[in-house]
Amino acid sequence: MTERIAKLEAYLKAEKLSAGLVFDEFNVRALTGIECDNACLVVAPGQKPVFFTDFRYVPMVHRVAPGLKVKDIKNIRFPGKKVGYEPSMSHARFLGLQKKFPGVEFVDFEPKIKELRAVKTAEEIEKIRKVEALNDEIWAAAQQKLRPGMTEREMARIIQLLMVERGDGEAFATIVCVGKNAAECHHVPDDTKWNGKEPVLVDMGVKLDGVCADMTRNLVPARAGATYRKVYKTVLEANMKAIAGLRPGMTGKALDKIARDHIKAAGFGKCFGHSLGHGVGYQVHEAPNASSKSTMKLEPGMLVTIEPGIYLEGNLGVRIEDLVLVTETGCEVLSHSAK
Amino acid sequence: MTERIAKLEAYLKAEKLSAGLVFDEFNVRALTGIECDNACLVVAPGQKPVFFTDFRYVPMVHRVAPGLKVKDIKNIRFPGKKVGYEPSMSHARFLGLQKKFPGVEFVDFEPKIKELRAVKTAEEIEKIRKVEALNDEIWAAAQQKLRPGMTEREMARIIQLLMVERGDGEAFATIVCVGKNAAECHHVPDDTKWNGKEPVLVDMGVKLDGVCADMTRNLVPARAGATYRKVYKTVLEANMKAIAGLRPGMTGKALDKIARDHIKAAGFGKCFGHSLGHGVGYQVHEAPNASSKSTMKLEPGMLVTIEPGIYLEGNLGVRIEDLVLVTETGCEVLSHSAK
Repeated sequence: MTERIAKLEAYLKAEKLSAGLVFDEFNVRALTGIECDNACLVVAPGQKPVFFTDFRYVPMVHRVAPGLKVKDIKNIRFPGKKVGYEPSMSHARFLGLQKKFPGVEFVDFEPKIKELRAVKTAEEIEKIRKVEALNDEIWAAAQQKLRPGMTEREMARIIQLLMVERGDGEAFATIVCVGKNAAECHHVPDDTKWNGKEPVLVDMGVKLDGVCADMTRNLVPARAGATYRKVYKTVLEANMKAIAGLRPGMTGKALDKIARDHIKAAGFGKCFGHSLGHGVGYQVHEAPNASSKSTMKLEPGMLVTIEPGIYLEGNLGVRIEDLVLVTETGCEVLSHSAK
Repeated sequence: MTERIAKLEAYLKAEKLSAGLVFDEFNVRALTGIECDNACLVVAPGQKPVFFTDFRYVPMVHRVAPGLKVKDIKNIRFPGKKVGYEPSMSHARFLGLQKKFPGVEFVDFEPKIKELRAVKTAEEIEKIRKVEALNDEIWAAAQQKLRPGMTEREMARIIQLLMVERGDGEAFATIVCVGKNAAECHHVPDDTKWNGKEPVLVDMGVKLDGVCADMTRNLVPARAGATYRKVYKTVLEANMKAIAGLRPGMTGKALDKIARDHIKAAGFGKCFGHSLGHGVGYQVHEAPNASSKSTMKLEPGMLVTIEPGIYLEGNLGVRIEDLVLVTETGCEVLSHSAK
């Protein structure tokens, strides 16, 4: 974690910022390893970082990070008049800072923090490998329990229960779509019953040890219609082409293009309305993005989902999502469930 | 829900605001009944409300609120140059609005929305009554399963599992504190084992149908020490005095004072570091507050927790929390678990 702080300090120095204020709890965690929802980490080149928090969290911080300087968040202080801040903070908080520190210029330095978070530490990679393996295990266990006649809500609950039993619960609300409900790409599980003959799309991610899993699979019926089979095959090919084509140094945009071009060529270009993927870590959506706009280069140690989809309104939807780790030569797929 | 929108429109008119933009998802839900995490409800006196969202949610909105005008969130529009906004939005979003709508003056109208949300509709009260009863039921079931030798984490997981099985999961991360860990009022369940002779503090709330429960109870050992018994008695008396003393028209501050004065008189004034309570609804913390600063008057139809606590550092902690509904004559306690 100290390495990220050192890099952030170097960035502040290069940008002639005298300090940086980190409030976002996931940014704080990525920089310090500390889980705390009321904190401000003040980083300043040439000075020791200071962890500002309230009295409730002081004993915990001392325990988790014995060397770290801890002070009362009511008395935030930082050197200089031009400092980095996160525009993701609430506007109310920003107004409070402006009032408390008149004459200070606040400069957005959040993209740098996101970039630092995008490349995972060895420890984080181990945790994410573990959580994605657990997700595979839960999906295997869930398939033993899902039965025709169940509603989407019931199936989602089975998965959620397994996540609480075996992990730390859901990283996001599990998506279960029966039949044509899969055409709505953010469908919320409802009382639609599965007759056992329709396909079922499941997008699920368990949480463990502070990190998130993410994977999408489809239960494909033995007698799926011709359109469904064609769509499924196209999505699977797009997923596999992107995995095979991923190289470090490539932009997120270039990766997205591999899958998108394949889907376009098959005649479904207008039915893939979202981006190919996103980073995963302490949050289920973080940098890097793999979208048609993403200029961030994929580097070894980054994690990204590869989740092409085709949605035919009122008819069907297929999405296949794997989580992959960018390596020196390509990528390693961390999701091992059959697809 | 329409009634709240009508009141908000009247407020905008009185304040000479030409429109109001509602982005916060819980504010949106309280005003429209719609669950949507990417929306902006535009309310303007004399005009029909418009629900702006993205393509993913359009079919759902049409289904849930057939009469409501729905438009693409990329094309937000509103009449006039002086409009209400919510400072709880991210600073980044505020900057985006300023850029998109130059010359528009944005005025904080969030306190009014919070006030409108504080008084619950009959339908909301029924839902909250139900979720708090479910919480009681889960606490009863949990007590059958908690055993000496379990860690705090294991006990919290048992409760969490019951919440997923019987409700819609946790409204907030369940707090379980064994012995002196209860002295940290926001302790996170860890590997501390319960020997069966120490007291255990449990703060728990299940979610159901979009609303939250909240309750704190303590497992008191048969042979608790004299200090613990004195503290427990003082906290229970403070809780009961506040319940008995609550009257509509009273401020949150006055309610807080009833419990605080009792704890002070018993010599523990410095050991009650938080406020007496908070409102509960779609979120587990909402208006009205019952703190030493809260000037909002308690009105029939409001919900508020009554949760005095005494924390002796490194030694013990007791908090007893009930959720109550303000009535025409006093209040009705919705938490029925023994205390």
